[in-house]
Amino acid sequence: TLKKELEELNQVDIAELLEKLDVYTALLIFRMLSKDLAVEVFSHFSVEQQRNIIGLVTDKELKYIVEELFFDDMVDIIEEMPANIVKKILKHAKEEERSLINQFLKYPPESAGSIMTIEYVDLKKHMTVGDALNHIKKTGLDKETVYTCYVTDENRKLEGIISLRKLVISDEEKTIEDIMNKDVIYVHTHDDQETVANIFKKYGFLALPVVDKEDRLTGIITVDDIMDVIEQENTEDFQRMAAMAPSEEKYLDTDILTLAKHRILWLLVLMISATFTGRIIMKYEGVLQTIVVLTAFIPMLMDTGGNSGNQSSTLIIRGLALGEIELKDAGKVLWKEFRISVIVGFMLAVINFFRIYLFDTVGPLVAFTVSITLFLTVIISKGIGSLLPMAAKKLNIDPAIMAGPLITTIVDAISLILYFKIATLILGI
Amino acid sequence: TLKKELEELNQVDIAELLEKLDVYTALLIFRMLSKDLAVEVFSHFSVEQQRNIIGLVTDKELKYIVEELFFDDMVDIIEEMPANIVKKILKHAKEEERSLINQFLKYPPESAGSIMTIEYVDLKKHMTVGDALNHIKKTGLDKETVYTCYVTDENRKLEGIISLRKLVISDEEKTIEDIMNKDVIYVHTHDDQETVANIFKKYGFLALPVVDKEDRLTGIITVDDIMDVIEQENTEDFQRMAAMAPSEEKYLDTDILTLAKHRILWLLVLMISATFTGRIIMKYEGVLQTIVVLTAFIPMLMDTGGNSGNQSSTLIIRGLALGEIELKDAGKVLWKEFRISVIVGFMLAVINFFRIYLFDTVGPLVAFTVSITLFLTVIISKGIGSLLPMAAKKLNIDPAIMAGPLITTIVDAISLILYFKIATLILGI
Ligand SMILES: [Mg+2]
Ligand SMILES: [Mg+2]
Ligand SMILES: [Mg+2]
Ligand SMILES: [Mg+2]
Ligand SMILES: [Mg+2]
Ligand SMILES: [Mg+2]
Ligand SMILES: [Mg+2]
Ligand SMILES: [Mg+2]
Ligand SMILES: [Mg+2]
Ligand SMILES: [Mg+2]
Ligand SMILES: [Mg+2]
Ligand SMILES: [Mg+2]
Ligand SMILES: [Mg+2]
Repeated sequence: TLKKELEELNQVDIAELLEKLDVYTALLIFRMLSKDLAVEVFSHFSVEQQRNIIGLVTDKELKYIVEELFFDDMVDIIEEMPANIVKKILKHAKEEERSLINQFLKYPPESAGSIMTIEYVDLKKHMTVGDALNHIKKTGLDKETVYTCYVTDENRKLEGIISLRKLVISDEEKTIEDIMNKDVIYVHTHDDQETVANIFKKYGFLALPVVDKEDRLTGIITVDDIMDVIEQENTEDFQRMAAMAPSEEKYLDTDILTLAKHRILWLLVLMISATFTGRIIMKYEGVLQTIVVLTAFIPMLMDTGGNSGNQSSTLIIRGLALGEIELKDAGKVLWKEFRISVIVGFMLAVINFFRIYLFDTVGPLVAFTVSITLFLTVIISKGIGSLLPMAAKKLNIDPAIMAGPLITTIVDAISLILYFKIATLILGI
Repeated sequence: TLKKELEELNQVDIAELLEKLDVYTALLIFRMLSKDLAVEVFSHFSVEQQRNIIGLVTDKELKYIVEELFFDDMVDIIEEMPANIVKKILKHAKEEERSLINQFLKYPPESAGSIMTIEYVDLKKHMTVGDALNHIKKTGLDKETVYTCYVTDENRKLEGIISLRKLVISDEEKTIEDIMNKDVIYVHTHDDQETVANIFKKYGFLALPVVDKEDRLTGIITVDDIMDVIEQENTEDFQRMAAMAPSEEKYLDTDILTLAKHRILWLLVLMISATFTGRIIMKYEGVLQTIVVLTAFIPMLMDTGGNSGNQSSTLIIRGLALGEIELKDAGKVLWKEFRISVIVGFMLAVINFFRIYLFDTVGPLVAFTVSITLFLTVIISKGIGSLLPMAAKKLNIDPAIMAGPLITTIVDAISLILYFKIATLILGI
């Protein structure tokens, strides 16, 4: 039967399948699923589909969904729903849950609190391993994970953690206190999700406890949600680095006006900044009129400068994001980039000299002017490309903004001034 | 005592700590650790530290390390060690393990086979839940994960999977066959690690089985290793998109010659490609000499074109990498980008017209020439920016190469030709 075949599929696949049907057929099939599977499928629907389904289910069905959803997913859904649906959802939440929802809604976006959930296995240190396993047997189905269990005291202070592997392997008579890990790594509710993601990556955890200011356990973060965070943070960086306002929506699901809006601001800012380059060129009109061929090398100088700076800024933005580079390394980074830029700049300049001297049949002095400018442009652009992201980090601005497009614009202006100054000097105009 | 304090730390932190000491002190402390912890710490050392330690430990110690290391980590280490150390390691591996190592070394880089390990829990379908739990109790300590268990037949064919959660919750008398999940999602040894990572992200798995051509279970991939893969693939894309040869080494650990080598090639290619822009300008020297002010807008036009193209290519490269955009969406993407580019291009062009007409005090015809070129440049650059990544994907080239720097260079040439053609036309030069 369809029901049986469906129930053998993974919940994510069922959600994907239903997403493709019209909402009434989807609801029909959705209702065929066993109740628990239905809730799981529901949590994988797109926001739009969730809205549609909530609009159509009975009060009793909605109550079940609200009761069974994991808390983190429910809070996420509430954040996305219109007021009338939120009201409908909150009506079905129990009193204490409602106040907890309000508390969770207040955690800042991208904080640990905003991605944690409350369904963890809570053990006490005087329990035996046998007690603990029994406790898990009874309550484990409703937990987000049972593979890491948390040991708390009567004030909800976190005293230790223990893995289900250790529980299964250990003697039934041992007490939790004897075998738990007391040196717990945890985060605070207001820590940034990027910090949290870096901890998961470093230690390879499956879950991480989150404590409040009084060190009470308030939730846990699981690795599946961290994978989403990692993709989201990476996408954000890609977008910022390409001069766009970041967006979490999928490209194909975003309408063109939103996409246009996300792109226009930075393009405008950068276009207007290019006024400076224009002014510089106007100021040195005379030089260009005397030796017209100089104009021909402007694009090459500017592009090479932009590309060199882009290389440095990308590596440093990435290093900062992954925690591989810290602000205290600034001196080391700058010294490294300086030496690299001398090597790279020198090689490019030499090759460029012979290339334009031989193939573009310009005089040696012009070739020299262009090449020395190129050399200095590479050094300066790598300097700017490494300095700006670290300066941004220092000022608590997202370093990802200090990427290619912005650096290109800055380097353009600097390389042009250099070019004209050097030309005036060497060519004696 | 130091030993006791150390053993309370996380293995990753111990490794990090020892990394900072000179190798003799590190070895001294390394030897204080309990044997199993020592092996875990060893697997978190840097390649250099592993090499040093292997060079100094006794044969007996090395034997223990080789025996206890997880297989995926051992293969990774072997790949990085010089021949004499590899010989030393292989000497301590058992016969069958040696042939398995050779088999694993042959999986292509970035394939599922290259990141899988062999220490999984193997169950049979006729076992009861009690049997299975007992089996895990006995062998679980040596498994990479016990949280997902694999059910195979006598020919190692994968018949189902079952989570430890389900085992712990279920009746001891039930047989595995009754409660196992038969609709298993798996990958093949030669599948790309990026595909594997996308499966983990989609389903939120903790582990994934890998089968060979005959559908026999050959290994499993765990989520902690997938987190590394995700970071690695993202870093690779960031580097490619910034016109660098990708490198897996950490920035601060890489010497400047290697860094310079990774950067110079693309800079050279792009610099030499800029010859075209130079030629175009030389060809239209006359136009520029007649109306010198036209030169002033070249940087702005080129930068805006580069930035617009960069925005499109970044979103599409990212979408392709995450599997959100597929080749069959090409038409949809191009049509979307076309409409966006008309909106964005039009707004920029209008603003630009008034900006340069009013503030740069150029004639309306020049302002119009610049603005119409800008409008067309935005449309063309967004077209190229979306077409190239998809074309690359189609040709099995990494789409990440078709990013900002390359597109900038192409768009530069096109926008210049457009500019001069339009100028000749409108200004009647
Ligand atoms: Mg609930
Ligand atoms: Mg949330
Ligand atoms: Mg969750
Ligand atoms: Mg999730
Ligand atoms: Mg962020
Ligand atoms: Mg970020
Ligand atoms: Mg440029
Ligand atoms: Mg082994
Ligand atoms: Mg490997
Ligand atoms: Mg592993
Ligand atoms: Mg690992
Ligand atoms: Mg790759
Ligand atoms: Mg890739």
